[in-house]
Amino acid sequence: MTITITAFERSPDGGRGLARDTRVRWALEEVGQPYEVRLVSFRAMKEPAHLALHPFGQIPTYEEGDLALFETGAIVFHIAQRHAGLLPDDANARARAITWMFAAVNTVEPPILELGTARLLEGDKPWHDERLPLVEDRVRNRLKQLSARLGNADWLDGAFSAGDLMMVSVLLRLKSSGILDEYPNLAAYLARGETRPTYKRAFAAQLAVNTGRPPTG
Amino acid sequence: MTITITAFERSPDGGRGLARDTRVRWALEEVGQPYEVRLVSFRAMKEPAHLALHPFGQIPTYEEGDLALFETGAIVFHIAQRHAGLLPDDANARARAITWMFAAVNTVEPPILELGTARLLEGDKPWHDERLPLVEDRVRNRLKQLSARLGNADWLDGAFSAGDLMMVSVLLRLKSSGILDEYPNLAAYLARGETRPTYKRAFAAQLAVNTGRPPTG
Repeated sequence: MTITITAFERSPDGGRGLARDTRVRWALEEVGQPYEVRLVSFRAMKEPAHLALHPFGQIPTYEEGDLALFETGAIVFHIAQRHAGLLPDDANARARAITWMFAAVNTVEPPILELGTARLLEGDKPWHDERLPLVEDRVRNRLKQLSARLGNADWLDGAFSAGDLMMVSVLLRLKSSGILDEYPNLAAYLARGETRPTYKRAFAAQLAVNTGRPPTG
Repeated sequence: MTITITAFERSPDGGRGLARDTRVRWALEEVGQPYEVRLVSFRAMKEPAHLALHPFGQIPTYEEGDLALFETGAIVFHIAQRHAGLLPDDANARARAITWMFAAVNTVEPPILELGTARLLEGDKPWHDERLPLVEDRVRNRLKQLSARLGNADWLDGAFSAGDLMMVSVLLRLKSSGILDEYPNLAAYLARGETRPTYKRAFAAQLAVNTGRPPTG
């Protein structure tokens, strides 16, 4: 059955890989599943046809036969459940890898999203300059704890898993802020994710949409 | 095997049920599994023994034999996977229920957490009064979409699932704000969750910790 995902017709980040379809593309590359992409405009995302697929009017969505899913974490989890390569076979190790998926989206990502909001939606507000350091410190608080847990390991719990895929994707949002450089083991962890051939293919595919040029290599 | 979870020795909300152990207690009540609780102080949460269980120094954690988990969403998912009652048997329906679990914690909860942060951590800042309506509107944006999807249904996708358990738990954080009353079907959805005997037992159990009186009935 064909897998079809949706992505921005034109991503707000211009193809830096921060749109959430990159996470799903990466998961599909990890498990070696081909997929098709349907591009949607900002206008179409708020129309009934897309809202039927995604109640919050966002991308990505995932369609496969009569199954339709939204929400990146759930889509990545679904891919990881159905295909080998993203979750360990041992039941306890599998539960721990899933734990990192939830930790990425519910513990580490919220302060990072708040930092993005402070910059993008409140950048012109009179409180911006005074408030930004508070928000950055909330991000640092989480990074410090994550850095302590990761230590010298390559990945969060044994081999690379869907938990690492989600955590690396969340940390990618901080790349331009410079904050990650304060935690060298997290910067190295991010770089380790980015150099996976699977990530590179996912990144190239989303970039091609935004530049209008097909991926090379 | 005995299930042991951790909870606050004294919850910051004084027992209003907003501490995340309530979500795990509720899930265990739904599937009919007994559990033990180990209470931890704020000080102990930041010490090595607890950080080994929970790298972000929070509650709840979950221990069962040689399995140790943290992160509420992951714990609820683990309980739902291992015991009948919180996820449908049909594979597609199951994937959709899991989608709502992730939507609760990654799409609906972040702006609600931001609202909590604005009130609790920035309530004394000079920008608080002017900024609060912006943050509230971001919450409304999500609630409006959630309300449109729920419509007249009792639950988000067929029978009550772990997705509803997580979504109701997230919405509970808004109870004192009055915002939920602007969306009568969401207020009714929340009330539907709160009147489940399983929720009532979970709520009573966490309240008893905070009042020092054992639950009655």
